[in-house]
Amino acid sequence: MNPLEQKIIDSAVVMPGNILRVDSFLNHQLDMTVFDWIGGEFARRFEDDKITRVLTIESSGIGLACFTAYKLGVPAVFAKKNRTKNLGNDVYLSAVSSYTTGITYPVMVSRDYLCSSDRVLIVDDFLARGAALLGLIDVVNQSGASLAGCGIAIEKTFQNGGARIRDMGIRVESLARIKSMSDDGAVIFE
Amino acid sequence: MNPLEQKIIDSAVVMPGNILRVDSFLNHQLDMTVFDWIGGEFARRFEDDKITRVLTIESSGIGLACFTAYKLGVPAVFAKKNRTKNLGNDVYLSAVSSYTTGITYPVMVSRDYLCSSDRVLIVDDFLARGAALLGLIDVVNQSGASLAGCGIAIEKTFQNGGARIRDMGIRVESLARIKSMSDDGAVIFE
Repeated sequence: MNPLEQKIIDSAVVMPGNILRVDSFLNHQLDMTVFDWIGGEFARRFEDDKITRVLTIESSGIGLACFTAYKLGVPAVFAKKNRTKNLGNDVYLSAVSSYTTGITYPVMVSRDYLCSSDRVLIVDDFLARGAALLGLIDVVNQSGASLAGCGIAIEKTFQNGGARIRDMGIRVESLARIKSMSDDGAVIFE
Repeated sequence: MNPLEQKIIDSAVVMPGNILRVDSFLNHQLDMTVFDWIGGEFARRFEDDKITRVLTIESSGIGLACFTAYKLGVPAVFAKKNRTKNLGNDVYLSAVSSYTTGITYPVMVSRDYLCSSDRVLIVDDFLARGAALLGLIDVVNQSGASLAGCGIAIEKTFQNGGARIRDMGIRVESLARIKSMSDDGAVIFE
């Protein structure tokens, strides 16, 4: 069992509707020991891939992308969900429909920070149905950059996002692969 | 001139309306060398303050809070602007009116991640009129935690947020203090 899986067993809470609450260490309070391990692990798995930028989406992915990018010695870029005054108009634009919230939101990255000479590693905290990841992959494709793969902290393999993205020929590295969760709180890894 | 001030001179863009675009290194693309320096500097300035948690607000503060928290050996916590399913209902709640966007949004932190025994360092990317910072200070006060101070990357000292918060007796450490910006792109530091 790796440090992230151990942390899930110790601290995550299974909620009705196959929701795994990891707000004590991953997406509200952030445990820097866990983040440091995750970033190091993504960097190690993609160290020979000549990554030039690490791409994620606000907000929960940002900390993980930072640790990964720092260890790879490259910048991180986070896609924005809201158009802010300082984003500018020249953006790659995709759309994501969140199953959890039922909301469709834009995914925007300035054209200044992804280009055809880039080799991109996408990083995110969760992979379930894959909606957010597909939006980020679309943005990478629009930019003409090449995609080295995706580093995911927690994949729910009982949902179809991972299979769908791997079927596109994209490398997905997930550090904790959850096969099932039960209402009594048990989490079973692959 | 410190590394952040140098980066501002080299890469920031002055926009009409006293907006400083730093999206090439601070709040869209993230330059890990700059983040590492900022986090180290906040940690050094508050190293004797027995910090137990670093608090910020999504999204631009998260990377800075991570580097600071990592170096202090404590968790980071980021306040949320949207109520998500996994946040729960038991939150400290404040409100922020953004001058830049004209929107009022909630600031929420779970009661699980701030308590009266905490000693908190607030970290954020910008301090101008101080709206976001006042929301975070309100959350800390609601929790009963003690506030060690605020670490700010860029303060616009020609706006009144910094003076207002220092007048409350709160320590504010800003790493780049901008006295004025002109439409021809010049940035003058204090």
